[in-house]
Amino acid sequence: MSAGPIDDLIAHLSRLPGIGERTATRLAFFLLRATPAFREGFARSIQGLSQIHLCSNCSTVTDTDPCNICRSHLRDTHLICVVEKPSDIYSIERLHSYQGTYHVLHGLLSPLEGITPADLRLSQLFGRISESPPRELILALSPTVEGDATAAYIVKQLSGKTSLSRLASGLPIGSDLEFADQITLGKAFEARTSVI
Amino acid sequence: MSAGPIDDLIAHLSRLPGIGERTATRLAFFLLRATPAFREGFARSIQGLSQIHLCSNCSTVTDTDPCNICRSHLRDTHLICVVEKPSDIYSIERLHSYQGTYHVLHGLLSPLEGITPADLRLSQLFGRISESPPRELILALSPTVEGDATAAYIVKQLSGKTSLSRLASGLPIGSDLEFADQITLGKAFEARTSVI
Repeated sequence: MSAGPIDDLIAHLSRLPGIGERTATRLAFFLLRATPAFREGFARSIQGLSQIHLCSNCSTVTDTDPCNICRSHLRDTHLICVVEKPSDIYSIERLHSYQGTYHVLHGLLSPLEGITPADLRLSQLFGRISESPPRELILALSPTVEGDATAAYIVKQLSGKTSLSRLASGLPIGSDLEFADQITLGKAFEARTSVI
Repeated sequence: MSAGPIDDLIAHLSRLPGIGERTATRLAFFLLRATPAFREGFARSIQGLSQIHLCSNCSTVTDTDPCNICRSHLRDTHLICVVEKPSDIYSIERLHSYQGTYHVLHGLLSPLEGITPADLRLSQLFGRISESPPRELILALSPTVEGDATAAYIVKQLSGKTSLSRLASGLPIGSDLEFADQITLGKAFEARTSVI
């Protein structure tokens, strides 16, 4: 190989998920052609991750405490959206439509993998709710066995204490009914909505 | 969004070719879970690119001068492989079979785009050859109009001065003849090799 820092960068890029050696080489040469200012900003943003900790209120990852969302005056604190992991917040924020707050569980219940309620940030959630009961708690958990189990547990613990909702399941927009799996199609039938 | 350094990293990752916002988010959270040592090494390898310059002998990118290949005692300096760009060297090195040296042109002739011989590192190549004529010069240029034009120009300039060869064109290994374009198929016919 021809150059130390380039090989070193390719080795690091190859360790990222979904990036093979050829893509890593392409990215390294892109960075070599990029401006020094872009490279410096990129390197600093990686180093900046060491300042990240969990928000004491909602348990998301943040460099401030409370996090930007928890301390924003523009967010409706009476609305809490429960998610599995911090990156789920990014998926929902990209919609630019939800204006409430979040709570990150950092996992889902899984008896098979030995993940019990004590392993999740559930006591923090229940603490938040008893301190200041929200108008609505939205369970934005994946429609999987683990997501369903976690949602059922939360519903059982909080029944009567707050209004609870869960994201709709059904056919993904743009998908072909022909290729929908039976469980999804069954759910879509069950939860059909009146149109007239 | 919930955290400054994470948003900043996602913004930088999204600028890389072929990486959209969703992939950038996934990579950023991978880096957040990675060890601080890996992140520090990654950041340093990006910063290390600012030490990169061109090798005074072969014109590839390097942090030493001459580059690792040019100063290696294990490489055959009487064999020069001419490539368009430094990343082509990485593609060839991955074969682990070529033991000669390289020369990087940093482009290909293209009258349409106004790229003339003076824009490429050709004088450096001709200088190297007249100083120490190689046993063979391998033209590893893409089989495109620009690659063909550049190869033809080099052949014209060097005819009689050194032995010249060019990478074979034909059907890619594993491809289906049915899907080969006519020009590739024609070339493969023309350059057919005797098997018995």
